Amino acid sequence: MTGLRWEILTFTPLRLSNVKMRFPVFLTYGVALLTTSVPVLAIPKLQKEYRHRRLPTDPLVKRDTEGSCTDTSAFVDSSAPKANIFYGLSDLEVADVASWLFAQPDLNLTVTANATDWDNTITLIELLQPNKTDALAYLDGDSPPPTRNAHVILSISSVDEPYYADLIVGPLPAVEGTTTWTPLEYIYTKKAGGKVRNLDADYETVYYEWVSVITASVADITEDLIGGSATGSENDTLSVWGVDPYWQDDGRVVRWDSFFGYPEGDFDSMTLLPLGLYFKSDVTGRDPAEWEFQGWLYNNIFYETTEEFRAAWESPDFVKIPINTDGPWGHTDQQGPVLPMDVSQPPTLVAPTGARFTVDKDARFVKWMDFEFFISFNRDTGMHLHDVKYKGERIIYELGLQEALAHYAANDPFQSGTAYLDSYYGFGPYSFELVNGYDCPSYSTYLNTSFYTRETTRTHLNSICLFEHDPAYPLQRHSTGDYVSVTKNIIFTVRNICTIGNYDYMFSYEFYMDGSIGVDVRASGYIQSTNAANNGDYGYKITGESVSGSMHDHVINFKLDLDILGTENTMELTKLVPTTETYAWSKKPRNTMKLERNLLETEDDGKIFWDPFTQYSIINTDQVNEFGEYPGYRILPTASTAHLTILNSTNLENAANWVTHDLMVTAQHDTEPRSAHPYNSQDVFDPPVDFEAFFNGENLTQTDLVLWFNLGMHHVPHTGDLPNTVFTTAHSAIMITPHNYLATDASRQTVQQVRINYGGGNASEVTSFGQEPAQCVVGVSSEDYNLEGYLGDVVIRKFPYDPTDPWYETGWIGK
Amino acid sequence: MTGLRWEILTFTPLRLSNVKMRFPVFLTYGVALLTTSVPVLAIPKLQKEYRHRRLPTDPLVKRDTEGSCTDTSAFVDSSAPKANIFYGLSDLEVADVASWLFAQPDLNLTVTANATDWDNTITLIELLQPNKTDALAYLDGDSPPPTRNAHVILSISSVDEPYYADLIVGPLPAVEGTTTWTPLEYIYTKKAGGKVRNLDADYETVYYEWVSVITASVADITEDLIGGSATGSENDTLSVWGVDPYWQDDGRVVRWDSFFGYPEGDFDSMTLLPLGLYFKSDVTGRDPAEWEFQGWLYNNIFYETTEEFRAAWESPDFVKIPINTDGPWGHTDQQGPVLPMDVSQPPTLVAPTGARFTVDKDARFVKWMDFEFFISFNRDTGMHLHDVKYKGERIIYELGLQEALAHYAANDPFQSGTAYLDSYYGFGPYSFELVNGYDCPSYSTYLNTSFYTRETTRTHLNSICLFEHDPAYPLQRHSTGDYVSVTKNIIFTVRNICTIGNYDYMFSYEFYMDGSIGVDVRASGYIQSTNAANNGDYGYKITGESVSGSMHDHVINFKLDLDILGTENTMELTKLVPTTETYAWSKKPRNTMKLERNLLETEDDGKIFWDPFTQYSIINTDQVNEFGEYPGYRILPTASTAHLTILNSTNLENAANWVTHDLMVTAQHDTEPRSAHPYNSQDVFDPPVDFEAFFNGENLTQTDLVLWFNLGMHHVPHTGDLPNTVFTTAHSAIMITPHNYLATDASRQTVQQVRINYGGGNASEVTSFGQEPAQCVVGVSSEDYNLEGYLGDVVIRKFPYDPTDPWYETGWIGK
Repeated sequence: MTGLRWEILTFTPLRLSNVKMRFPVFLTYGVALLTTSVPVLAIPKLQKEYRHRRLPTDPLVKRDTEGSCTDTSAFVDSSAPKANIFYGLSDLEVADVASWLFAQPDLNLTVTANATDWDNTITLIELLQPNKTDALAYLDGDSPPPTRNAHVILSISSVDEPYYADLIVGPLPAVEGTTTWTPLEYIYTKKAGGKVRNLDADYETVYYEWVSVITASVADITEDLIGGSATGSENDTLSVWGVDPYWQDDGRVVRWDSFFGYPEGDFDSMTLLPLGLYFKSDVTGRDPAEWEFQGWLYNNIFYETTEEFRAAWESPDFVKIPINTDGPWGHTDQQGPVLPMDVSQPPTLVAPTGARFTVDKDARFVKWMDFEFFISFNRDTGMHLHDVKYKGERIIYELGLQEALAHYAANDPFQSGTAYLDSYYGFGPYSFELVNGYDCPSYSTYLNTSFYTRETTRTHLNSICLFEHDPAYPLQRHSTGDYVSVTKNIIFTVRNICTIGNYDYMFSYEFYMDGSIGVDVRASGYIQSTNAANNGDYGYKITGESVSGSMHDHVINFKLDLDILGTENTMELTKLVPTTETYAWSKKPRNTMKLERNLLETEDDGKIFWDPFTQYSIINTDQVNEFGEYPGYRILPTASTAHLTILNSTNLENAANWVTHDLMVTAQHDTEPRSAHPYNSQDVFDPPVDFEAFFNGENLTQTDLVLWFNLGMHHVPHTGDLPNTVFTTAHSAIMITPHNYLATDASRQTVQQVRINYGGGNASEVTSFGQEPAQCVVGVSSEDYNLEGYLGDVVIRKFPYDPTDPWYETGWIGK
Repeated sequence: MTGLRWEILTFTPLRLSNVKMRFPVFLTYGVALLTTSVPVLAIPKLQKEYRHRRLPTDPLVKRDTEGSCTDTSAFVDSSAPKANIFYGLSDLEVADVASWLFAQPDLNLTVTANATDWDNTITLIELLQPNKTDALAYLDGDSPPPTRNAHVILSISSVDEPYYADLIVGPLPAVEGTTTWTPLEYIYTKKAGGKVRNLDADYETVYYEWVSVITASVADITEDLIGGSATGSENDTLSVWGVDPYWQDDGRVVRWDSFFGYPEGDFDSMTLLPLGLYFKSDVTGRDPAEWEFQGWLYNNIFYETTEEFRAAWESPDFVKIPINTDGPWGHTDQQGPVLPMDVSQPPTLVAPTGARFTVDKDARFVKWMDFEFFISFNRDTGMHLHDVKYKGERIIYELGLQEALAHYAANDPFQSGTAYLDSYYGFGPYSFELVNGYDCPSYSTYLNTSFYTRETTRTHLNSICLFEHDPAYPLQRHSTGDYVSVTKNIIFTVRNICTIGNYDYMFSYEFYMDGSIGVDVRASGYIQSTNAANNGDYGYKITGESVSGSMHDHVINFKLDLDILGTENTMELTKLVPTTETYAWSKKPRNTMKLERNLLETEDDGKIFWDPFTQYSIINTDQVNEFGEYPGYRILPTASTAHLTILNSTNLENAANWVTHDLMVTAQHDTEPRSAHPYNSQDVFDPPVDFEAFFNGENLTQTDLVLWFNLGMHHVPHTGDLPNTVFTTAHSAIMITPHNYLATDASRQTVQQVRINYGGGNASEVTSFGQEPAQCVVGVSSEDYNLEGYLGDVVIRKFPYDPTDPWYETGWIGK
């Protein structure tokens, strides 16, 4: 799913200069543009254009025609009842922490732009999420907001065994003499003083002094076999990447590199151009003199030395495999005959009366109908929802992505070894601007997102959208001979899209009038293919050349901390079972079914495969409802989901022990806030967070529960994945839905329904419950999408922070 | 799911006259209104109003404001390339067959309105679907259309052992001397001369001379225990229904009857008012003198005689259970506080340029983009699609509903015994008018549907809708640092909704620009509940009185006759399996995964449970594609599905042997066109179609395959099912999707996509591929839905047919 990690953000001019090997931070931070010379002077202007273009009070609704819909504005601001203690640090807090860190001589930090492989740098400055204990004391009681602390990660590269250092810096604001740093360890299962080894500290050395030298040594062979060469020069015609994660067996650090072709023109199709030549090296330690080249692989023949490989290549019976070259099959633009009726504008969604929800733009606090929640955003996993209340009661303390695995398998070592744990790259930095009218309806309300990198706070404009829509089917209906009753199904969605290298993940949280909440992921973008030679057992051949749609599993882990009428909850498993019963009224035994109702007792039973005959509900057994049943919310898969096919993956070892099941239940602890760590890939045998360690037999009845569920897809790409996978079947979703939670269906509250009485051939009465019809017209021109103003990736504020320049304020674009 | 079968179409005035016991045909035919005095003179007027209201050239788009969207009309007519040989009989053909049948003295037929329980009547006159062999000869060759024959079912009630007679009447048109009738047997597994026993021939006698007498004998007890009485009079305050199907053990015909309360006011909530009193009778044979009352059941105590029951009731320690009475919890109208922002009109779908598809209104032939197909409609199962072509090649010969089972379980004999096989009632007669703007977008194109009953052809206006919509997520996208590419996801849907008693099934066939087709079912309407007393193992208590959300399974069987590049196809099962492998390049074994590709060999392996690690494709191994792979279409569940929990159901015996698995594959035979028969419930041990008999070990490689898949839900209703189940989670779906079928993704053909290049902080280029922007405005008033014209259920044409009166033409409303 990922792949070309350090390529995707580079500009074409830089790519021509062979930047792919020049940005060690890319692999680590997944951020690129910052080293380029984006003209700072242009930014205010762009920002202004943007503000003109998509202000919430702007335009798809408002029209200068008679009878146009009243512009009630796209949203009404509203104040959050409490501070958003989850959202993140302010720009000023970040700048203060950065200043404070540089002022600590014991940290020996170097500004990133000036750093070599042997300098210490700041990798991350973010809000350290408050402990749930402290957060609830504030949210539900009279306590002040939890003390704010920064979560800092340093890259300590000045030593022989480089590592990442997780620190707590606080309290904030950072003030010399008051604020201190301490190792961050308590939220990780590995107790190592907040240290994780860094296998990428010598990234630049590896590429320039090792990989390029090897690939240059066979330039004549690669020109012949795979149509180009990679020598580390600006004229390279091939790309070379290393596998992720490294082989870490027996204490060694081993890399496999693979050659890829460059796409033609503008398209990002490099992951469709694998060339089938691989080489292995042991790069353990920091001394290149100790590194060892270990062989070539071509057409499933392993050559231990370059000499051996060269001799084989020179022999007359050497067998060559086809070269993959780019073509229209890898390009996403319109192709093929235009269908005549396709040219006309298709049906579209409009919002005649503007938004029917409110947003506190500073607090990222959202209210839609009887739902309300806070939004947060972080580097590792992007957007989370917090303190989701429904009809005034909290139902979710936290809901958000934890980690996304893309695990491949193949006959070759590169794809076989690939098991991307995408939070390493981070979802936050790759949550790009959404395309209005395409990614989200044209009337959507947008929020910006920010993330830290290289002493700056960086903002993606319009990277979260919020909108209502009508899914073209009703929520409820019933017909009789006398009347029909139908209710519109208006769904409220919060969405962002993160493109991690080749793949685009769309995350949507969907709220329904019946009290249900859906968590929905779709995937599009480029597959990471492999060379089809010898890979018939691992994928389909999908081009006329030698591209295999390399099989892989996506497993995407989420945390769902449900709180049903308080934190003390229990999971009920209600199973429909076949049975043979004899009743008071039956003489013979009858084959029928009944319910088995069980409570989940301990974490020993907390790992679950979805059973289609079982219903899983989080209930509160201390709050029996007026009918004698337990109120709760049910969780169920609503599209296909996936856990990992592979058992005990050699690539992953202990780095992702949440992949084994569909749904996992643990007791909540402030010490177990996340199922993964972004650097688990750096030490797969002994990672900072081993999810397996969460399971220690704790009692799960009437205690604070956390659900960890996996979405995902088993993906065996076929020709229809060229040029891009489409969202149609690359889809996974769960829903949580009220279960004996209220006395009746909550959607009866909506006025967006109609009852029509009829009889004798006439409609006698139409009841519409006080809906206000919008007697008006709406503009529907797609030109109003204003795509000319799409910026992709802008707004940079440099360290040190200049609070006197308002253009650099990150936040709500409408402000 | 069903239940109040003979109630739902009765007008209030008739219900007050206690019609529930007066219409034996309702139970058989599921049709009611025809005996009422709908003023015929009013129909032309209504028809005309209708035509004014929702002509395809009508008005949601067109506006008298400057800049309004061009009215390109809601559809463009287009001619089908061939006749629709699947659609059904013309009204004239039906009238001719009816005339011809009445002219056959050996059939001894009586007009339905004049018939007693001992007369023979016509139950059905429909088109006998052509054999696939004959149809393909016409569709693909130069053969003339297949000979048209009528499928006639007679109710032969003039004999001691009443039966339904399935006949072929043909050739058509029916002409005395040329046309003949022969028993229809070859399409059923039971070879009984087309005869099925009829257990309902004495329906009226049963209710008036048996059930009412029994219930009257305990009127004092029922007044006390369950708050009313049923004596067969017009003043009855309770309703009594018999279980479906009858107990048919040991050659006996045994019924259980149950008491229900009447709802207050207008609502159809009777299935929420079960009163917990049941009685059993053996009604074998046609002589009421031979029938035997066998006992009462109340509060899980069985009383063999009324005397015993009465004595218990009179005893001081008799335990009474709560009475269920109607209330707002059973009413669908708006209830509860109105949410302020809910009053404004929500986002809605509009079609700025009208429909972008064509319909041949006579042939029911539809073309959307590169898809085209015919629609048919029949009494038993409603709407089917035929000869679905994609890019000029047939991919589906037939796709349609076969049967829907709603199987309950409970501690009481009524719910325990209930296993509705809904084609008994028929989906065709219950495919009601759709509510514009609610059931389907307001710009939808509608088709009418017709069905035969009681010597008339009856039409439901606007009961099929066709529309495109934007689901608020794109079809494809990819972002890089240089550009973003996004494609709109325009989906074309064909939908109808059938309300079988208490439950509303929404059937949607969805077509995607990538070549995928979805089959989607949602369920709403009233649950059939049971009395909560003693039913804790079978459902939740969901009211303060004594209503149990009675557990049940919906299993809904479809036929999918796929033809991939010809009729000779094979199913491939591609399984992702964990494995441990040692490679040329690995010294140690590696835990990884690979593909196992198997072909389905014979019908012995043709019954499949969905395995999440297996991909199921229908491929053509004789048509290897240019890359060496087999072209095909994959079938996959895209929402939850269900097969029956119960093993060897005592209610069903052999009547529904398709319930056991998720996906079943058989060799196509003209003798096996449908998995069920509408009267399978009449003889569950030896039904006319026993699906199990389709499986006889035939080879399935490169032969004509038919898939039979089940959608459905395991439903344990909870409080959120009151008053109605909502569509949100009552959802089941599969999709078929191209699989190595074309060289690349077909959606690249659409112009509804955009590429935005950017860099250096600017969008440098926006490419929109020739899309025509609609620079215009669209009216969005919900008042344009014209719901005042909703008719529900109209247009009756009496036998004998009068071809001189055009108002009675059934068909396309725009004609």
